[in-house]
Amino acid sequence: MKVCIDVKTVLLLSSMEKNTAPPVPYLYLHYDGEIYDSQPIRVVSSCSLDIYLFPFDIQNCSFTFNSYIHVIDEIQLFLSGTGDEMTEESKMLISTMGEWSLNKITANRAEIDTVEGNVYVELQCHISIRRHPTTYVVNLLLPSCFLIAVDVFSFMLPPKKIDRSLFKMTLVLGYTVFLLNTNQMLPITGDTVPLINVFLSMCLLMMVATLVESIFVTNLLHGSADYPPAPRWFRDFVFQVLGRLVRISAKSIERDDTVIQNPNAQEMADSSPVVTKNDISEEKETLNESKSVQVLRKINRDLKAIHLQVEKRLKRNLSSQEWIYIALIIDRLLFFFYILFISISFITIIIIWVVSYNKA
Amino acid sequence: MKVCIDVKTVLLLSSMEKNTAPPVPYLYLHYDGEIYDSQPIRVVSSCSLDIYLFPFDIQNCSFTFNSYIHVIDEIQLFLSGTGDEMTEESKMLISTMGEWSLNKITANRAEIDTVEGNVYVELQCHISIRRHPTTYVVNLLLPSCFLIAVDVFSFMLPPKKIDRSLFKMTLVLGYTVFLLNTNQMLPITGDTVPLINVFLSMCLLMMVATLVESIFVTNLLHGSADYPPAPRWFRDFVFQVLGRLVRISAKSIERDDTVIQNPNAQEMADSSPVVTKNDISEEKETLNESKSVQVLRKINRDLKAIHLQVEKRLKRNLSSQEWIYIALIIDRLLFFFYILFISISFITIIIIWVVSYNKA
Amino acid sequence: MKVCIDVKTVLLLSSMEKNTAPPVPYLYLHYDGEIYDSQPIRVVSSCSLDIYLFPFDIQNCSFTFNSYIHVIDEIQLFLSGTGDEMTEESKMLISTMGEWSLNKITANRAEIDTVEGNVYVELQCHISIRRHPTTYVVNLLLPSCFLIAVDVFSFMLPPKKIDRSLFKMTLVLGYTVFLLNTNQMLPITGDTVPLINVFLSMCLLMMVATLVESIFVTNLLHGSADYPPAPRWFRDFVFQVLGRLVRISAKSIERDDTVIQNPNAQEMADSSPVVTKNDISEEKETLNESKSVQVLRKINRDLKAIHLQVEKRLKRNLSSQEWIYIALIIDRLLFFFYILFISISFITIIIIWVVSYNKA
Amino acid sequence: MKVCIDVKTVLLLSSMEKNTAPPVPYLYLHYDGEIYDSQPIRVVSSCSLDIYLFPFDIQNCSFTFNSYIHVIDEIQLFLSGTGDEMTEESKMLISTMGEWSLNKITANRAEIDTVEGNVYVELQCHISIRRHPTTYVVNLLLPSCFLIAVDVFSFMLPPKKIDRSLFKMTLVLGYTVFLLNTNQMLPITGDTVPLINVFLSMCLLMMVATLVESIFVTNLLHGSADYPPAPRWFRDFVFQVLGRLVRISAKSIERDDTVIQNPNAQEMADSSPVVTKNDISEEKETLNESKSVQVLRKINRDLKAIHLQVEKRLKRNLSSQEWIYIALIIDRLLFFFYILFISISFITIIIIWVVSYNKA
Amino acid sequence: MKVCIDVKTVLLLSSMEKNTAPPVPYLYLHYDGEIYDSQPIRVVSSCSLDIYLFPFDIQNCSFTFNSYIHVIDEIQLFLSGTGDEMTEESKMLISTMGEWSLNKITANRAEIDTVEGNVYVELQCHISIRRHPTTYVVNLLLPSCFLIAVDVFSFMLPPKKIDRSLFKMTLVLGYTVFLLNTNQMLPITGDTVPLINVFLSMCLLMMVATLVESIFVTNLLHGSADYPPAPRWFRDFVFQVLGRLVRISAKSIERDDTVIQNPNAQEMADSSPVVTKNDISEEKETLNESKSVQVLRKINRDLKAIHLQVEKRLKRNLSSQEWIYIALIIDRLLFFFYILFISISFITIIIIWVVSYNKA
Repeated sequence: MKVCIDVKTVLLLSSMEKNTAPPVPYLYLHYDGEIYDSQPIRVVSSCSLDIYLFPFDIQNCSFTFNSYIHVIDEIQLFLSGTGDEMTEESKMLISTMGEWSLNKITANRAEIDTVEGNVYVELQCHISIRRHPTTYVVNLLLPSCFLIAVDVFSFMLPPKKIDRSLFKMTLVLGYTVFLLNTNQMLPITGDTVPLINVFLSMCLLMMVATLVESIFVTNLLHGSADYPPAPRWFRDFVFQVLGRLVRISAKSIERDDTVIQNPNAQEMADSSPVVTKNDISEEKETLNESKSVQVLRKINRDLKAIHLQVEKRLKRNLSSQEWIYIALIIDRLLFFFYILFISISFITIIIIWVVSYNKA
Repeated sequence: MKVCIDVKTVLLLSSMEKNTAPPVPYLYLHYDGEIYDSQPIRVVSSCSLDIYLFPFDIQNCSFTFNSYIHVIDEIQLFLSGTGDEMTEESKMLISTMGEWSLNKITANRAEIDTVEGNVYVELQCHISIRRHPTTYVVNLLLPSCFLIAVDVFSFMLPPKKIDRSLFKMTLVLGYTVFLLNTNQMLPITGDTVPLINVFLSMCLLMMVATLVESIFVTNLLHGSADYPPAPRWFRDFVFQVLGRLVRISAKSIERDDTVIQNPNAQEMADSSPVVTKNDISEEKETLNESKSVQVLRKINRDLKAIHLQVEKRLKRNLSSQEWIYIALIIDRLLFFFYILFISISFITIIIIWVVSYNKA
Repeated sequence: MKVCIDVKTVLLLSSMEKNTAPPVPYLYLHYDGEIYDSQPIRVVSSCSLDIYLFPFDIQNCSFTFNSYIHVIDEIQLFLSGTGDEMTEESKMLISTMGEWSLNKITANRAEIDTVEGNVYVELQCHISIRRHPTTYVVNLLLPSCFLIAVDVFSFMLPPKKIDRSLFKMTLVLGYTVFLLNTNQMLPITGDTVPLINVFLSMCLLMMVATLVESIFVTNLLHGSADYPPAPRWFRDFVFQVLGRLVRISAKSIERDDTVIQNPNAQEMADSSPVVTKNDISEEKETLNESKSVQVLRKINRDLKAIHLQVEKRLKRNLSSQEWIYIALIIDRLLFFFYILFISISFITIIIIWVVSYNKA
Repeated sequence: MKVCIDVKTVLLLSSMEKNTAPPVPYLYLHYDGEIYDSQPIRVVSSCSLDIYLFPFDIQNCSFTFNSYIHVIDEIQLFLSGTGDEMTEESKMLISTMGEWSLNKITANRAEIDTVEGNVYVELQCHISIRRHPTTYVVNLLLPSCFLIAVDVFSFMLPPKKIDRSLFKMTLVLGYTVFLLNTNQMLPITGDTVPLINVFLSMCLLMMVATLVESIFVTNLLHGSADYPPAPRWFRDFVFQVLGRLVRISAKSIERDDTVIQNPNAQEMADSSPVVTKNDISEEKETLNESKSVQVLRKINRDLKAIHLQVEKRLKRNLSSQEWIYIALIIDRLLFFFYILFISISFITIIIIWVVSYNKA
Repeated sequence: MKVCIDVKTVLLLSSMEKNTAPPVPYLYLHYDGEIYDSQPIRVVSSCSLDIYLFPFDIQNCSFTFNSYIHVIDEIQLFLSGTGDEMTEESKMLISTMGEWSLNKITANRAEIDTVEGNVYVELQCHISIRRHPTTYVVNLLLPSCFLIAVDVFSFMLPPKKIDRSLFKMTLVLGYTVFLLNTNQMLPITGDTVPLINVFLSMCLLMMVATLVESIFVTNLLHGSADYPPAPRWFRDFVFQVLGRLVRISAKSIERDDTVIQNPNAQEMADSSPVVTKNDISEEKETLNESKSVQVLRKINRDLKAIHLQVEKRLKRNLSSQEWIYIALIIDRLLFFFYILFISISFITIIIIWVVSYNKA
């Protein structure tokens, strides 16, 4: 007895759900023993997904149809068409696939020998479906790239004037919220982590890293007034080697330093002791001088005091000038590293996606 | 044998769910062989949605009723009314349509020839339903437009005084959260991306673009002190061409420049060497002079030092004045581009919606 | 044959779901042909909701019970009690109503004539249920009012010192998140937008409007240094008419203006050319003078330069003083408009709710 | 005929769902007419929850078992054990209770007389279940208390230097998001609002109130320059009464005032007219004087102008000094009120919870 | 009669759901009375979870198969294989386990004596499943650690220049949102709180604690101008003991103090009374002096006034210098405590996880 199974009416015995399709009391019984059963069957099956390439993934599901209790002598099963015919017919009949599109159906007929000497016929259908990535690209990848782009450009915020750390914190906050929302979109699987998850986590990691770097630079810029001067070798290394690397010319810095720092330092050096010494010596000479000179000296004293105070306020910043330039150089350097790292990661991921997508 | 199918009681054989409506043991059997079956049937069917015009979309679903096993000779099916009658009756009977409203039902009767020479009768119902866009307009489009409006007006924030980048970052954060929440409202489909999704993503893109632009302008405004002066041709191009375009008169800038910069520069030029030279020469002459003159010179020296320091602080900003004006001009220019781009996009999208809505 | 239907055991034929209540093989058959059927029936029905008054809404659902196939001669249906009795009994039996409370049940018996001359009996139950608004008031309306209150009071933030735009942006961000979360609470309907939705959207609109206004005022306050002076008629109109309206006396402004601006302007007018002229003339006379006078002149020159620079920095702000006052007046004016608008809106909505709630 | 109902196998007739447990074709029929039916039954029942004490609530659900159609003469029902035995056995058999733990089962047997003279037997089980509050304490109450604590401590932010309003706005934003997320955890009920909801809303209210207070204080601190001086009685009241209350000694303020304000005011009073008068008078005398005096006068004039401008900038703040101290006193006072209010509320709520929890 | 139960076809009688697998009308009946029943059965069972070690947890579920009504004399049940065979076969057959992986199956056969003297056969399967922690590590633990890291590094933000409290508030806001979102991932259980929940709550607690500490330090830094000087013993304790502990050398602070404070204080002490006294005395002597001296005195007076005002502004900060250093020392100290606390907590939790994971 032969049984032909129609593509439209598959009989799935490995399904754990009862068939809920309406029954059809109708069967073609041919003179040669061939039976054509066009019974519609609703199958709910489970299919192991490999989501490593998540939004660009292609899934292969196998459906096996066999008679659970009848051996080949009792029932013979035949495919009513080749895999290509099935694919074509299915594509025509399918009205909604949601986020999936049917890629290809391959089918074959196998005869299985059991231990007990019986032979069963098995019809195997391998269905390959391809996920439509558009939704995920638009909702996951694009915003993620936008936020990363903002993170990259945030290095342009002048750290001296703008509170870059708060800006980046807000960015990280946004990305965290975004990440958690998107986790609801991603399928949960046991053993493999999708590449996109690695990508998103890496983005978060990089954001947090550059946030910490921003805090570090901010610390050097604003808090360096209380720091001891940088050790000579370190300063030289940063200014000469790193500075040249990132095209912040160390020369201009040092000249700037000397112009600003030296004269003040000299003036300070000879003026500050003079003040205290003169104060005492002038005190004694006061009586001998004419009144106008006396008054002028007072004026001089006041002016010096004002001068000193104005200088002191400026000096604070000057003494940490070195650290500030070190911070700027490190900032620029890490920015280049960041760019480099992010480019390589992106290119790697994209290559993996493209290669895998074409292969599948 | 003729069978009339009532609109209220459609028999759907392509449905994969079993009919769960209560059975009615009742059938009108007429003397001429006409059978009137008013069996209620609950149909759960799938319908391929074209959501390109998402909140303003009209969906067409086809229901096909036929006898699965009986040919035309055995069962003849007839519609009990025209499409318009069906539409009217349906509108009366429908109590809740959720976000959909019934647009129109068209029905026709077809005779299908199969390969085996049999003829089946098929009743085809085309149901057109229109989505109520109000909820989506109020919850998706309006807030989105509000946020875009805030983004547009944020260009009015004076970049010199207010941290515009943080403001825009907060805006982008808000929009991201908003976007992800709304993604749950949007239907997921495979091949076509709804126009509204394009619209929302474009809004995000523009926000991010203007955020990056803000960072760029902030960089020019605050960080330009360390920049080399702009090349002559670039400066001329920006001031003469772009400046005129955005109505920031380049003349006032340049005059302002000369007024502020030149005298200081001159004074600097002749005063700074004088200080150092005079310091040495005066040191020698000190003894010959009268005491009052001696004191006066000291006063003069202190005053000069204060003057220099005050100037130096101001000069820093002056040297980057040019870059600042370039930044302001670029800011204004990009603002105009942004306005232009956003207007065109909006008008295009609205036209597409209106045209499609009226056509359908 | 008469059939009495018990309230507890309603037979709903318009339901599309099969009855899932356990069957009771038990029927009271009286000698006079009266049949008392206490069959429990679980009904899942759909009811068209009018959610215009959303959290304060009262819904009316109609249940119609009739024999689908038997005419009045075959089966007569009777209500076993009046509507009031049903209401009382139901209230006693109901254990959980979730967010709904049973308001009233009215019932009546109707005889329906069909076209074919048959008469059917129909029992109609109109069930009126009232939503418990507490949850929605506590979770939707109160936080919304709180945020609006913060928005109103945010006008008290001095725009000169505090970055009001960022504050309001954060507020708008919070409200957007809040709004989207609450949209999940609101029922989706097709044609009518609930009043509360209008209310919430109006709140968002007002927040965005005042945010834009804040940006505008911030622009006038901080960016007005580069603006041309306001035209006379506009300035007069704002200071005289609007200023009086919002109780910022225009007089104090103008006096303040004259005190600050005029002397400086005069001094500038005669001092600035003097500097340049004197520079040249004094240069020539230097030799003839005594040394002390020579030094004094130098001091004078330095002091003048310092004076000029200090003045220039202050002058910038002074020249935009007018615009700042205009901004403050407009700010105050829009604040009054906002208060007015918000009060009227709130009162209107509350009146609509109260009137409708009492009417229903 | 007696029927014993086992605890494991309850027959619930008030359930509206059909029993889905697998049937057991097995019944102990004793010689004395006792029937022991161990039929497993899956019951889905509804139970009216009183969630006033929400995460610490104990719910009592009643299950009533009776024969729907057989009177006492036909079927007699007996409990197979006492309530305590049932409780013990149930606790042993239950494997998962989710967030509930079985508290106690009490059972009794009642004979119900109907109007028609029949007597039915009814077995009533009262099941008392206690919610495990840990999850809600950890996820709802603790974070809420943390945020309130931050709100309380935020009063320590110096309002003069830090933008406290933005800080609190961010806090309110966080709390709103938190509140809305947690609303999904809270059960929705009609008539009673859970105490925890009152608690959370009160927290939000207090946050908003202190936010508005912060705005108010900020306004006084930064915007008071344009205010008229505070009326004498109000100032006295605040400084003498409230100031003492909050330990900001009013004396130091007033002395500080006199030290700062009076001399300046005096100097202003005699210097400003002197400038204008002297300008004119000196102008005439210029020719008679020696050159050095002439130059000195010019220097004097410039210095006076600088002095005046520096003073004017400081004076602005001085004139609003009074308002600032008033703001600080009010700030401290409201802080104490806030602490007091929050303590009382917390203690009240905790007492209610503890008392109710022990009672139940 | 012996019955062998296949692993693939388990018969679960403790299940409360009806078997929904398709029936197989097929049973191997051997000559010796052995019956091999390969009936597929779909079992939905509940299993008490111990989620203390949440993402690294191993769950043990027991399935008991017995004949509900037939004693050992009527039906004997046998396992068709050992536990290891079952495990292997199951691992081969399982296609999707979601986030779980099958660890081990152990099976045994028990004979149960009932009170009534009957003996039942019971087949017990203990299934041990292990959760795949990757998803939770990537989505819960990593972002949490990232945010904690940001919190730790935020101590590097210079509290004098940057508004560290707002930064931390934004961080806490982000973490709260993150925490609430993740609560949806965590299973709800009654009695035990998962270790990860303790971990996450502890992180929040520490963030809030350091936020409050930041507010406290900010208060000392900015608001200390109005504070009374710190008591001698406290100052000594902080500078000598704590200062050394955190390597902020107390000496440099005190020297800095003396250099800045003392001369000013002295000068103030002798200059301020001089001003007022001299004013009066000089007023009288004015007439006798030459005009130039007269003018010089005026200049002197103006300069002194400017000097005083500049000093007063600086002094304010100086008087709170002590408090600021105390704040910095406490800040550093608490930072060390925080690091210590966080390290110990992390190590403890990780040890617990590792130990438990290896044990299970």
